[in-house]
Amino acid sequence: MAENLLKGKKGIIFGALNDKSIAWKAAEKAHQQGAEFVLTNVPVSIRMGTINELAEKTNSIVVPADAASEGDLENLFKESMKHFGGKVDFVLHSVAMSLNVRKKRAYSDLNYNFLEKTLDISAISFHKLLQTAFKMDAINEWGSVVALSYVAAQRTLYGYNDMADAKALLESIARSFGYIYGRDKKVRVNTVSQSPTPTTAGSGVKGLDKLLDFSERMSPLGNADAEECADFLITLFSDLTRKITMQNLFHDGGFSSMGMSLKAMSQYEKSFDCDEIPVD
Amino acid sequence: MAENLLKGKKGIIFGALNDKSIAWKAAEKAHQQGAEFVLTNVPVSIRMGTINELAEKTNSIVVPADAASEGDLENLFKESMKHFGGKVDFVLHSVAMSLNVRKKRAYSDLNYNFLEKTLDISAISFHKLLQTAFKMDAINEWGSVVALSYVAAQRTLYGYNDMADAKALLESIARSFGYIYGRDKKVRVNTVSQSPTPTTAGSGVKGLDKLLDFSERMSPLGNADAEECADFLITLFSDLTRKITMQNLFHDGGFSSMGMSLKAMSQYEKSFDCDEIPVD
Amino acid sequence: MAENLLKGKKGIIFGALNDKSIAWKAAEKAHQQGAEFVLTNVPVSIRMGTINELAEKTNSIVVPADAASEGDLENLFKESMKHFGGKVDFVLHSVAMSLNVRKKRAYSDLNYNFLEKTLDISAISFHKLLQTAFKMDAINEWGSVVALSYVAAQRTLYGYNDMADAKALLESIARSFGYIYGRDKKVRVNTVSQSPTPTTAGSGVKGLDKLLDFSERMSPLGNADAEECADFLITLFSDLTRKITMQNLFHDGGFSSMGMSLKAMSQYEKSFDCDEIPVD
Amino acid sequence: MAENLLKGKKGIIFGALNDKSIAWKAAEKAHQQGAEFVLTNVPVSIRMGTINELAEKTNSIVVPADAASEGDLENLFKESMKHFGGKVDFVLHSVAMSLNVRKKRAYSDLNYNFLEKTLDISAISFHKLLQTAFKMDAINEWGSVVALSYVAAQRTLYGYNDMADAKALLESIARSFGYIYGRDKKVRVNTVSQSPTPTTAGSGVKGLDKLLDFSERMSPLGNADAEECADFLITLFSDLTRKITMQNLFHDGGFSSMGMSLKAMSQYEKSFDCDEIPVD
Repeated sequence: MAENLLKGKKGIIFGALNDKSIAWKAAEKAHQQGAEFVLTNVPVSIRMGTINELAEKTNSIVVPADAASEGDLENLFKESMKHFGGKVDFVLHSVAMSLNVRKKRAYSDLNYNFLEKTLDISAISFHKLLQTAFKMDAINEWGSVVALSYVAAQRTLYGYNDMADAKALLESIARSFGYIYGRDKKVRVNTVSQSPTPTTAGSGVKGLDKLLDFSERMSPLGNADAEECADFLITLFSDLTRKITMQNLFHDGGFSSMGMSLKAMSQYEKSFDCDEIPVD
Repeated sequence: MAENLLKGKKGIIFGALNDKSIAWKAAEKAHQQGAEFVLTNVPVSIRMGTINELAEKTNSIVVPADAASEGDLENLFKESMKHFGGKVDFVLHSVAMSLNVRKKRAYSDLNYNFLEKTLDISAISFHKLLQTAFKMDAINEWGSVVALSYVAAQRTLYGYNDMADAKALLESIARSFGYIYGRDKKVRVNTVSQSPTPTTAGSGVKGLDKLLDFSERMSPLGNADAEECADFLITLFSDLTRKITMQNLFHDGGFSSMGMSLKAMSQYEKSFDCDEIPVD
Repeated sequence: MAENLLKGKKGIIFGALNDKSIAWKAAEKAHQQGAEFVLTNVPVSIRMGTINELAEKTNSIVVPADAASEGDLENLFKESMKHFGGKVDFVLHSVAMSLNVRKKRAYSDLNYNFLEKTLDISAISFHKLLQTAFKMDAINEWGSVVALSYVAAQRTLYGYNDMADAKALLESIARSFGYIYGRDKKVRVNTVSQSPTPTTAGSGVKGLDKLLDFSERMSPLGNADAEECADFLITLFSDLTRKITMQNLFHDGGFSSMGMSLKAMSQYEKSFDCDEIPVD
Repeated sequence: MAENLLKGKKGIIFGALNDKSIAWKAAEKAHQQGAEFVLTNVPVSIRMGTINELAEKTNSIVVPADAASEGDLENLFKESMKHFGGKVDFVLHSVAMSLNVRKKRAYSDLNYNFLEKTLDISAISFHKLLQTAFKMDAINEWGSVVALSYVAAQRTLYGYNDMADAKALLESIARSFGYIYGRDKKVRVNTVSQSPTPTTAGSGVKGLDKLLDFSERMSPLGNADAEECADFLITLFSDLTRKITMQNLFHDGGFSSMGMSLKAMSQYEKSFDCDEIPVD
């Protein structure tokens, strides 16, 4: 598809580690739709991943930045505006990390330095991004800023740990800053609550494969994948959604509105048949 | 317990079919807490059930009424006010029925006469109750009206059918009339969204036993039972909750705030082990 | 704009009364984006309005139908499939009417025949539409069905009356049928909760002008208008949003996520200055 | 009233600065209902306020603690268990502070050290409290932990600043830890979202008086005051609400379910009459 939905639009895309990343797919789709953009990630992820390959394919530049560093963010917007010769129209925030998850600290045994880092990198970075852009007046009127979230912000999923709290904070920041940025500059700010997605980052979550199976059976349309998420992001960066702001939008095949599906329950019921099989 | 939380309070309790009913438990608890009340139900349920036994135990009278009939409701409030020599302080609405569920019509093959009846009996009856009481000025200032709901009003559970829509309508009516009744007469109106409960009415829902199991494992405190629901209702009828109105309050052991629990997922995972056992 | 987002797509659009209607704008935009569609409305609205003008402009046919009549809906889908030589891809439901509002019955003095009609026309018609399409297998895989809603489904606005309950029921039907239609046919079903819009239908709501003013000042991006709503609808009918279902999507300039804005409060505060001006 | 609802229960109450504090009222009511408790606050607040007077009246001891300090919390639970000769049954968390609000930093010009402190004191302190109690096994089965929140966690109110994000984080922590504490120890964790309340802490919020007026007119039952909040808290600490967990409960006279009331709109409309008065 090449509908030129983003023709003439300039953007900044965080978090394209490799070709499994939602941000990577978003960059590819945005390119197809006529957008130009700057890719960014924290230096260690740039080394670990393959972002330069993406930059080449999409005719983009890469500006390293730690989303938690105000200085880096300032530099990123400065470089981006220099590159484009003007302000940007859209920003994608796809940044999240929890040392408590990585180091397998239970939620009832959190390390508070780790928690501070989780919140700083996964949520407060979004405020820093917005505040930096706001102060530098770096986003055009009717621009669009989106961060990626997950249903754990509203409902507890075991093992998702302090990332749930980070996502709740992230969604709140989107509302709080969405009010200011909308009122003063006509810029909209939203979060997309995406199905669990088997990206490199996502695969750190405990028991992800079983969760993906359950989520797939619960969702009437099945889990949304990274590419489908990228499609939706294109609509949010386009001029067709200019009056949507301060929202958390579920892109999840229906999961968030389900209490119990026939498919998930049918699978669940099998577990009891199984119990009845004598093990000898 | 006999803390006299409802000392001097007069009420009307709908829907006590038999000793499994939430309304039955609520009547027993209200009696223990010092309340007097009128019991009511539709004539057929009075014959089918054992409400007269409850009336005797709790020193109450029974006034038959079809909650969907304005005439019956008018008579009910008239008789109640005559009985008490004044207005009432609380009303419990525990009334629901779906012919589509009973006749096993799928949600994609609803009979619209049945749907109209589902909505009339399970939701509009609550408006009729409130409107009748409002017009007759039958509820004291700071009175409390509660209807029973279920999480299906927000999230789809297969098999719950048109009762989900009825509960959504019921919760909306609680908000809409809660505004009017609060503003004009200081009467509060709420719904309680209760765990699936193995009452006589609840047992009509398809696959209830498996749903109860899943819900039990998902809820950190387990499913709430009818007696625990009755305890909570007492607080809502008491003077300790006078500023709570237009709310849907989840009384469900935490289910509504869960995405996935370790217990439910552990059981779910067993279903796959089971698949792997060769059947020969 | 002509991005061909709906190239090759066939649809049915309810409710285009005149050029102020959201459905009218949606039809114009869908036409620009390459869609073909059938226009429909109830005969009295066809006579009152100017739908034939729209049909001519967009190269469409008009098939009269009462959305509350199963027979009419069956005929509508039959005629549409004959016209297109196949199934449809999208349907817009923009149908609402309350005799209680029209006849100025207060919410505490509803006429229950009117209420039944409000629910039938404004909410159950959506179920009838979906059930008819489902039974006739009239919608292609990955098709999209959208109904228009309003924030009154979640929060009470004085004067909106029984339409609030109808919208809550409508949103519930979208979830309930969205589950079935997604699971069985990969068709998605959503509602769009739109800013108050000065359409011919909307102008029946009491005090609409003052509400529009308040809503405008509360929403950081201002109220969304009919044309902007139509833009958003295009994205929902397109292939870019295939995994969004069972959602109520707020298209309202941020209103739904606001508690109080500086602009609305500044205006509100003036009311007190005013009180202080001596009237002599 | 002295219904002995909390007879035999032991608790810990944070945040009773002076007799305007919600925590102060909660302590008085808990005492009336038969509870014993330990009062706690950060040393500077103990000096600034009159907590010792309350301790005397309620026959309590005061154990100073900074809710953000793990060491202090450990000492608090140790001292409390020593005092009671056993575990506690309830804890009230009423702790919040924002230097960004105090220093009048706009939300688009936050100081991030201040933000870190806001989150640490107002939200993470709740996790620390829960984790400390959990590790020390300091709360009895069916115990109840409550933190105070505000609707700003869901909807943006200008001027509430980074406290909105702190409250969103607080409510998420209540869910996340409520799951663990419920599952492992049958302890429930909830937040109460209270009307704006003219406490000493609350009065720091910009334009509080006008917000209180608007909120009063929007809420059908008017704003809930500190004493009414305390009444509700008693029910949450009692055995009558044992299956309510992971919830955010609105105690706000109906505000959270309102879109627009007649009273608020009538006042709002006056602002326009005012505009029309010539100023000469």
